[in-house]
Amino acid sequence: MPELTPAEVDEFVARVYPATPGLGYRCDAIGPGFAVARWSHDPRALRPGELISGPTQFGAADLALWYLSFTVLGLAPMAVTSDLHISFLRPARGGDLLARAELLRAGKTRITGRVLLWIDGAEDRPVAHATGNYAVLG
Amino acid sequence: MPELTPAEVDEFVARVYPATPGLGYRCDAIGPGFAVARWSHDPRALRPGELISGPTQFGAADLALWYLSFTVLGLAPMAVTSDLHISFLRPARGGDLLARAELLRAGKTRITGRVLLWIDGAEDRPVAHATGNYAVLG
Amino acid sequence: MPELTPAEVDEFVARVYPATPGLGYRCDAIGPGFAVARWSHDPRALRPGELISGPTQFGAADLALWYLSFTVLGLAPMAVTSDLHISFLRPARGGDLLARAELLRAGKTRITGRVLLWIDGAEDRPVAHATGNYAVLG
Amino acid sequence: MPELTPAEVDEFVARVYPATPGLGYRCDAIGPGFAVARWSHDPRALRPGELISGPTQFGAADLALWYLSFTVLGLAPMAVTSDLHISFLRPARGGDLLARAELLRAGKTRITGRVLLWIDGAEDRPVAHATGNYAVLG
Repeated sequence: MPELTPAEVDEFVARVYPATPGLGYRCDAIGPGFAVARWSHDPRALRPGELISGPTQFGAADLALWYLSFTVLGLAPMAVTSDLHISFLRPARGGDLLARAELLRAGKTRITGRVLLWIDGAEDRPVAHATGNYAVLG
Repeated sequence: MPELTPAEVDEFVARVYPATPGLGYRCDAIGPGFAVARWSHDPRALRPGELISGPTQFGAADLALWYLSFTVLGLAPMAVTSDLHISFLRPARGGDLLARAELLRAGKTRITGRVLLWIDGAEDRPVAHATGNYAVLG
Repeated sequence: MPELTPAEVDEFVARVYPATPGLGYRCDAIGPGFAVARWSHDPRALRPGELISGPTQFGAADLALWYLSFTVLGLAPMAVTSDLHISFLRPARGGDLLARAELLRAGKTRITGRVLLWIDGAEDRPVAHATGNYAVLG
Repeated sequence: MPELTPAEVDEFVARVYPATPGLGYRCDAIGPGFAVARWSHDPRALRPGELISGPTQFGAADLALWYLSFTVLGLAPMAVTSDLHISFLRPARGGDLLARAELLRAGKTRITGRVLLWIDGAEDRPVAHATGNYAVLG
């Protein structure tokens, strides 16, 4: 598998899911067995208390897992979320949100990964953790 | 617990989470042990293939569970999502999205429910299923 | 798909997984879109406080989902647990444990169901709820 | 919190849950933010194909998370499983099963951890991954 750059991932996603950049997401890093999504802090999208919402965090975890599928399948829309479990750990506020997906297993029909989410600069205090399965399209 | 109406729920949510109506969500029904959220079909928010996105479905499930907490705790922001597991079952497209949350247990510190999601008119073909725990604030 | 009886399911499971009957599990009911596993109350297997353990409940949920796969695929070991999410709702004690699995979707590569667990005679007070995906072997 | 040793954990668990050692589980390691459970390979408990069963893996993950609660709350039965999500990644066979729990967050009412499971000697090829929440008793 040739190595991908975050810019290549962003360009591909903007083409396939044109709404993604406007929602504030982009690829921050990608490499063998991992991928990081970044949500740029946007005061207009916050919940009261300046909290980053659950759906925004879910979206970041889901996107990081989708990036992760590219490290296995190449840059193609060949995987769809099958199921995702997310645990919210702490209030999420104060900066960009980062979601780092780590590959647990790549099978023929299913890719499984786990995702840690934190506010930029506070990696030691994760705000959420997710586990997800992606189905590989035939 | 006095009975709530969808209009009362919508008014409360618009006050506490002002962004919610703009995202297309509202309360469709609520009663003892259940609550239904509706996402009004919006072509601008769809994924390619006219699919309702995973985060939109997650948002509907999460909101339905939050409505459900009102049936237990009254109309107050006293519960926050602790964790949510969602399984996507079928492509979601073609109309409004409905998410019906059903109470499994209301404890002192935790409310647990499950949610079935379908496209309006096709309740027999659910597009997703979720289970969630809400933490009750002290 | 020809209809199955609980006795046929038990006979098949005893042949394929010979340890199952000795663990106290059997099929209680099976039909289109559902299957029920029963764990016969066994004082020797209880936790202190006479509680039915988490792994025993997990085993019942997992088995009920496996029975459910027979309603789709026939009586054959053609499905394996891919992932399972279980929420414990109340202390489980006082009688046989029942686990009723309900089909959410049967796809070509994946079967999804949800399971409600209760103590025999107290169906209105579930002790646990699970959601599971089974992978269909190729 | 004074440091615990695996022997102290095993002695405590044997007193509180006397059935645990007979099921083949023991504490392999414990320290700040982590705990490891070991299931000693037992041919009599295997599934056909010499596979370690799902419930045995669930039991190991659950126990490792319980050990983890001791690193936060001390050696006392003060936490109970609230929910657990387990993804099976590969066939589990050929040796002892190890389950390493890692702390994600310790709150006042809830402890969250994730668990990686593998066959002794093959840590780079995990057989399962779990995430769990424990409720802290008041």
